[in-house]
Amino acid sequence: MKAILFDAYGTLFDVHSVVRACEAAFPGRGTEFSNVWRTKQLEVSWLRGLARQYVSFWQITQDTFDFAIAKLRLEVAPKVRKDILDAYSSLSPFPEVLTTLDQLDAQNIILGTLSNGSPEMLDAVLTSSGLGTRLAHVLSVDRIGRFKPDPAVYKMGVEALNVPSAQILFVSSNAWDIAGASWAGHPTFWVNRGGAPSDPLGVTATYTGATLVDVLPLFAQR
Amino acid sequence: MKAILFDAYGTLFDVHSVVRACEAAFPGRGTEFSNVWRTKQLEVSWLRGLARQYVSFWQITQDTFDFAIAKLRLEVAPKVRKDILDAYSSLSPFPEVLTTLDQLDAQNIILGTLSNGSPEMLDAVLTSSGLGTRLAHVLSVDRIGRFKPDPAVYKMGVEALNVPSAQILFVSSNAWDIAGASWAGHPTFWVNRGGAPSDPLGVTATYTGATLVDVLPLFAQR
Repeated sequence: MKAILFDAYGTLFDVHSVVRACEAAFPGRGTEFSNVWRTKQLEVSWLRGLARQYVSFWQITQDTFDFAIAKLRLEVAPKVRKDILDAYSSLSPFPEVLTTLDQLDAQNIILGTLSNGSPEMLDAVLTSSGLGTRLAHVLSVDRIGRFKPDPAVYKMGVEALNVPSAQILFVSSNAWDIAGASWAGHPTFWVNRGGAPSDPLGVTATYTGATLVDVLPLFAQR
Repeated sequence: MKAILFDAYGTLFDVHSVVRACEAAFPGRGTEFSNVWRTKQLEVSWLRGLARQYVSFWQITQDTFDFAIAKLRLEVAPKVRKDILDAYSSLSPFPEVLTTLDQLDAQNIILGTLSNGSPEMLDAVLTSSGLGTRLAHVLSVDRIGRFKPDPAVYKMGVEALNVPSAQILFVSSNAWDIAGASWAGHPTFWVNRGGAPSDPLGVTATYTGATLVDVLPLFAQR
């Protein structure tokens, strides 16, 4: 394996600060709110992807925020809404991410991220976190107007890196993203931070670990 | 409008008897179980549709049943598992369905169902309920190996009826199915039995009602 493509949200970046912002805005219901929001955010990306009705992930993030507010019969001031949405621009990487990327870079592994996030979302969070300088390839699905796990998305990653899929390790915390990458020919590493059961898609990740640190031994053996 | 295509599960057929079977098997957790199951059943259909990894909806129904068991750390005897899955074959239509279909048929409206369900699932439930004789067209996505809301599914419906999409009312209890049909050019009727908020897909149903009875006035005016 010569390269690694990482998913962004939940894999490199901890979305817990968004949950915290929700809890501050809706005391006692922040976790419920962010669960409804995140679930619908993904669902809408799949539905729009399947129906070929692409809009940017940032648009979806806003639309589904408003849906979750309506569904839970909450109210939110415009300023608070903006603050919560802005939390996406300043997410923290998980604690092991920076050092792991540096160790992989020292071994000349080609590193990139392949994300549903819109270019603006990715630019903001990669700049604020300092991860941007550590990733040679920042690939947003926006370039082709599709969403994961559409095969066209993984194909875009392979073409951008100009490395065969079998030589690119695909790393994601989402079991369905692992399935998509696996169907597209990648070896896969599932970061299963929470010990979740795999999605029932008939796919088993090539490798599984609790954090990104567990990726290192796969390359140290070379 | 000359024809109506109905979604099946949740629109013509009440899936509550499946919930009851779950509650009998897992006292106090049946509703939670069937929610996890149903949510994942839909998600997997979207994910497999988007990734072009079609398997029949019956296979997905079984795979996601087993997922829900694992996720909630339940145990189930093979006989009980079979009984719950078999409940899908003997669902009851909602109380107003039979008389509504008969009234529409008396006006020579072309009637059909367009469903994610596999042909075997649809045959079983249409036979046991007596609805089969009232629907001129029984259309399973299995014919083309895609899932709703893929535009190809709605196109299949239009071609099978040989009526322009603008003359076929599409009726569903699922807001995302309404969006898919609307994007495909159908006038739509959203059966919103539970007063749910619409999915954030930027689509408003042409008509909305609480039961199928509310479809009748749309045709009585002719």
